[in-house]
Amino acid sequence: MTDRFDGRDLDELRPVTIQTDFTEMPEASVLISMGKTKVMCTASVEESVPRWMRDAEPERGWVTAEYALLPGSTAPRFRRERRRVGGRTKEIQRLIGRSLRAVCDLEKLPGHTIWLDCDVLQADGGTRTASITGAFVALALACGRLVERGAIEEMPLRENVAAISAGVLGDQVLLDLPYEEDSTADVDMNVVMTGSGEFVEIQGTGEESTFSHKELLALLEVADKGIRELSEAQQAALPEDQMYAGLFG
Amino acid sequence: MTDRFDGRDLDELRPVTIQTDFTEMPEASVLISMGKTKVMCTASVEESVPRWMRDAEPERGWVTAEYALLPGSTAPRFRRERRRVGGRTKEIQRLIGRSLRAVCDLEKLPGHTIWLDCDVLQADGGTRTASITGAFVALALACGRLVERGAIEEMPLRENVAAISAGVLGDQVLLDLPYEEDSTADVDMNVVMTGSGEFVEIQGTGEESTFSHKELLALLEVADKGIRELSEAQQAALPEDQMYAGLFG
Amino acid sequence: MTDRFDGRDLDELRPVTIQTDFTEMPEASVLISMGKTKVMCTASVEESVPRWMRDAEPERGWVTAEYALLPGSTAPRFRRERRRVGGRTKEIQRLIGRSLRAVCDLEKLPGHTIWLDCDVLQADGGTRTASITGAFVALALACGRLVERGAIEEMPLRENVAAISAGVLGDQVLLDLPYEEDSTADVDMNVVMTGSGEFVEIQGTGEESTFSHKELLALLEVADKGIRELSEAQQAALPEDQMYAGLFG
Amino acid sequence: MTDRFDGRDLDELRPVTIQTDFTEMPEASVLISMGKTKVMCTASVEESVPRWMRDAEPERGWVTAEYALLPGSTAPRFRRERRRVGGRTKEIQRLIGRSLRAVCDLEKLPGHTIWLDCDVLQADGGTRTASITGAFVALALACGRLVERGAIEEMPLRENVAAISAGVLGDQVLLDLPYEEDSTADVDMNVVMTGSGEFVEIQGTGEESTFSHKELLALLEVADKGIRELSEAQQAALPEDQMYAGLFG
Amino acid sequence: MTDRFDGRDLDELRPVTIQTDFTEMPEASVLISMGKTKVMCTASVEESVPRWMRDAEPERGWVTAEYALLPGSTAPRFRRERRRVGGRTKEIQRLIGRSLRAVCDLEKLPGHTIWLDCDVLQADGGTRTASITGAFVALALACGRLVERGAIEEMPLRENVAAISAGVLGDQVLLDLPYEEDSTADVDMNVVMTGSGEFVEIQGTGEESTFSHKELLALLEVADKGIRELSEAQQAALPEDQMYAGLFG
Amino acid sequence: MTDRFDGRDLDELRPVTIQTDFTEMPEASVLISMGKTKVMCTASVEESVPRWMRDAEPERGWVTAEYALLPGSTAPRFRRERRRVGGRTKEIQRLIGRSLRAVCDLEKLPGHTIWLDCDVLQADGGTRTASITGAFVALALACGRLVERGAIEEMPLRENVAAISAGVLGDQVLLDLPYEEDSTADVDMNVVMTGSGEFVEIQGTGEESTFSHKELLALLEVADKGIRELSEAQQAALPEDQMYAGLFG
Repeated sequence: MTDRFDGRDLDELRPVTIQTDFTEMPEASVLISMGKTKVMCTASVEESVPRWMRDAEPERGWVTAEYALLPGSTAPRFRRERRRVGGRTKEIQRLIGRSLRAVCDLEKLPGHTIWLDCDVLQADGGTRTASITGAFVALALACGRLVERGAIEEMPLRENVAAISAGVLGDQVLLDLPYEEDSTADVDMNVVMTGSGEFVEIQGTGEESTFSHKELLALLEVADKGIRELSEAQQAALPEDQMYAGLFG
Repeated sequence: MTDRFDGRDLDELRPVTIQTDFTEMPEASVLISMGKTKVMCTASVEESVPRWMRDAEPERGWVTAEYALLPGSTAPRFRRERRRVGGRTKEIQRLIGRSLRAVCDLEKLPGHTIWLDCDVLQADGGTRTASITGAFVALALACGRLVERGAIEEMPLRENVAAISAGVLGDQVLLDLPYEEDSTADVDMNVVMTGSGEFVEIQGTGEESTFSHKELLALLEVADKGIRELSEAQQAALPEDQMYAGLFG
Repeated sequence: MTDRFDGRDLDELRPVTIQTDFTEMPEASVLISMGKTKVMCTASVEESVPRWMRDAEPERGWVTAEYALLPGSTAPRFRRERRRVGGRTKEIQRLIGRSLRAVCDLEKLPGHTIWLDCDVLQADGGTRTASITGAFVALALACGRLVERGAIEEMPLRENVAAISAGVLGDQVLLDLPYEEDSTADVDMNVVMTGSGEFVEIQGTGEESTFSHKELLALLEVADKGIRELSEAQQAALPEDQMYAGLFG
Repeated sequence: MTDRFDGRDLDELRPVTIQTDFTEMPEASVLISMGKTKVMCTASVEESVPRWMRDAEPERGWVTAEYALLPGSTAPRFRRERRRVGGRTKEIQRLIGRSLRAVCDLEKLPGHTIWLDCDVLQADGGTRTASITGAFVALALACGRLVERGAIEEMPLRENVAAISAGVLGDQVLLDLPYEEDSTADVDMNVVMTGSGEFVEIQGTGEESTFSHKELLALLEVADKGIRELSEAQQAALPEDQMYAGLFG
Repeated sequence: MTDRFDGRDLDELRPVTIQTDFTEMPEASVLISMGKTKVMCTASVEESVPRWMRDAEPERGWVTAEYALLPGSTAPRFRRERRRVGGRTKEIQRLIGRSLRAVCDLEKLPGHTIWLDCDVLQADGGTRTASITGAFVALALACGRLVERGAIEEMPLRENVAAISAGVLGDQVLLDLPYEEDSTADVDMNVVMTGSGEFVEIQGTGEESTFSHKELLALLEVADKGIRELSEAQQAALPEDQMYAGLFG
Repeated sequence: MTDRFDGRDLDELRPVTIQTDFTEMPEASVLISMGKTKVMCTASVEESVPRWMRDAEPERGWVTAEYALLPGSTAPRFRRERRRVGGRTKEIQRLIGRSLRAVCDLEKLPGHTIWLDCDVLQADGGTRTASITGAFVALALACGRLVERGAIEEMPLRENVAAISAGVLGDQVLLDLPYEEDSTADVDMNVVMTGSGEFVEIQGTGEESTFSHKELLALLEVADKGIRELSEAQQAALPEDQMYAGLFG
């Protein structure tokens, strides 16, 4: 039994769906939903690299991300960031980029930049972690298609990466917090892991509060369970092809 | 017979779908598709009015719009407008706002601002006209719900408004141009009309070219046909309720 | 007889004067007055083209415009746009640029950019149309001088272009609206035409209102009359030289 | 005899004209020419004061200035400052404002702000000093009109203020430098003085060079002569009325 | 024995000095050095709170932080962030603010905002953690002085907070990384803890790499040792007074 | 006897200290104190020159300055200039750069830019003049080190430059005004001079007031005395080496 307002178990994910080819203009496009949170993740390919890495030896590619909340994704309406980008937005898009690059061999992507745009259509907590999980699928698809049409020689990804939130609310450790829980949690943790169980990033914050070593270990444990289930959802969303299957150990 | 690359008649619209309640955070949310062009139109309600109209007598409300191309909506990727908003974007969102206000009695919306956010998920020509057509449906739904829950007394809209593009390509007058036609047209016209056949806005541009009085009349004629069909699609998307039906004379 | 507050006929222009060589630093400089509206239009020549067209084949030139209201041009004072440029300003300067390019053969201006700066010294309605009409004269003079000193081979302009406003106020169709009429008009139309009677641009707006097909035709008719008279004023302001006379069919 | 390229004596001003009521929208409008340098100085009155001085006791008014080079005022074209204002522009407009306030008794202007906008139509050296000299006339006229219509009780100006440049070029001390001299001068000095011979501001710069005490005294001497002549031109431009005559001791 | 280039043990801090009252304008001012890293932390008190919390019940205060690298703090020179603030800077100053607020009872600071400005005079790795450790001392001093002069009733801080970095380089787990180690580390972790051993924030990043659960535990262990030593240094820097001693359990 | 609140004679400087090598990252680093005013002046060397002087013949170098008040340097706190740089800041840093270049032979610094960053740690009046005096020492040291390691052939400085403020308060002429005097002075003058007694820059402002020729001469006299004493302090702070001694005639 549980006290969660939506009836979930403490360590249970919200329903996850990952729809590929949601739109057709970019190289790949994914719509990921985790409960009410919906993020459109597109992967656009550019045949050049940022100026600062142009003379790198050996030649490399680049993977980067942008993140935005659409104004209608929240109530009350979120004010569009058109004059300057807020600190929260910058933090999140840097996190998405670093997380994806952690499983990427950039030397296998020579001369290409892949932009992952994570636009949140509906926000109900966990938008940054859903963005990472969805963006990985878009990135994998885009890379696969670059391989298929001969633009690069082999899949530049080593394995999958996914992300999930966990938190402490009162004396309970919860997995995958929607807005209602997130906004009242004492501790908020975001964990980015590979399918093989290695950490890419851990960010744990006592929200104007603190947490103990024991709570930390409990948070990491439920996060690990969540990541394993998200990895399965990622694999299921990708084509049944050895190129993609090989990413899931 | 026709020369259009997608086989349409000269005066034929692309397939139109208008899906309401695409998301659930804002007061109303519409996903409109015209061919490959897809725009998410959300209506968010704020219980205040802009500073400059606070002391208006009698008390009024306000309806305003924002428009954005998502980066993944086009190939190559559209660079996000985060430091300054481009002239084209500003022109379009001013047009959307004016068009909606033309059928709106703002005194019947006292103390409320309705924000119409038109975020283009996929762009294939005609994004500004699709935005107007879709935003009207979101606005109507939002107003209807405000009436239903007693926040305002009566529907502040007088009738429906919709928009369509037409153009001259070689010696042919075409309705509803996708990107491929739009980018090569000699004349590009956007027409915003009410369901009763009155003009709200006409913008005709010889793209570094000119056009005759006769061509103008032919453009207006196909546009009129398109608007009538779009009005039917708008009505079909709204609930079967006298409050909405009354907008479609 | 007429109801206009300044005693003009419904289809009568305000007094027009076009003074060339108002200043002497730029390639050409024009001060156009239409009633109290006064705009200084300068044409500055730069021996390079924008980056995006540098590799165009065959080599081309570029014509572009900027528009500004000086702070003292209106009462109350207009706040200088120094941090960001407003949507209205951007719309107007894009319109001026497009209108001039519509009569320009850019391949005859290889390697040059001509900047038309339209700075409004005094604003009393119709500033955008006066800017187009005056800027054409400055552009023609600048082009003529480039031809004279051998910088380009032939006049890159095909014919003249001019612009005028028309509007509906109550049940009257009016030509050339000063601020007092413009601010209360139900319909506001700006028409850009060539001397030969072809349209370059039509922008008609029901100001939070709508207008009929019949009103549209009446507006176009008075505008056509105004454009013919403005073309004569443009021709009179330019030197009596075949190079310029040839622009006025 | 003299070596100046325009034949002037070393201590001779360029021809000065001060045209009042050049435009009619603002409270006062002046076009000042010093040789080819032409500046439009408008005085706009606002019936409020800046936030930071609202609670001042006794109640005061404010006088402030903005300065801009129009793009066509120079060749090559001056790039419009639309995203940020350059250091030179800010320096100049702060100087103009301080200079005017030095002769102003702000307590006699309660509740009003007067904006002096100095827009340079043509730039040939000395634009900042011409702006001060012209802006004083616009300010005096605006104040006089406020007194006449009873908005304030008495003239808030104590006396006139004017400004002029002087410089050292080779071993010659020159008055009123046009661009050609200014750009090669070793020392550049701007002097702002009242008609009664008191200094308001002295700015002397060795342009990547230095100057002696003796040169300083010679510069101040020619500047003093120039200021006296400019004061006469200011007085001649204003109406023959005791209210204005009293400013010129 | 150790491989560290500066001869330190793997779990040894760099020399730490905390100088209070480095300057005298702000309420409190601290210069903290950790090896070559030097940060000036000032605490400025403002007698108002941010707009969004003005109506909070019960009345509260606010603690916030800004962080900047001075241009001369690094070689090559760091370009001043004057037009926009970089993502890294925003991340760091948000972290500093959250960390300090985690030990602060804002209801005991009613009506006051304390700004902690962390300006890095010299940067050699660990600037964000040194900023937190130093800013806590400045905050404690400022709060103590507010209590002493009766502006607030009691010390609003519950206990001390400090921060340190740890990292994995090859197969070694290191404490307190200077730039040379930090720039080549495989894993970079910043830990913010209270003196009583509770976590405030954990940020662990595989720098384009990953790390195991076992490595995580080893990183937390050395960090815990470092925090205990920093807490002692903080206590030693503060006056010997029960008000401050009580913060160090 | 004197009325100055700190007991100084009218023509007496505040205590001056110039500490070299305050930090070690940049080429040179100086902490100058004049009374409570403390400015950190760093000289960073870049092996390139600004774009606009790249093609200069003969090849030259560049010397430029930036100035900032740290937020904690004043009470109340100074708001960080992060979105736009204020007019006062721009004026000051332009003055610092010009003053240093006046004694610099840029042709002896080919291919190098030296950035002088003047960050005010504590502000008590005279920050711009202290910045110039301190920055000269940092610049001299940086140039000396470039000569020593063979990056340039000879010292590019001709002599020393220093700066000081003077003012009129009531009927007294004062040297070196701290904030308390500066904020109430009737006339404020900043003088930049070389050690040999030549002027580099004079800026005298009647703060909303005026001053006579006689007052000007008295101000220049005390300033001259101050500059001579500052020159001695500069020389004492530099190494006893002919390369530096030669700068002090």
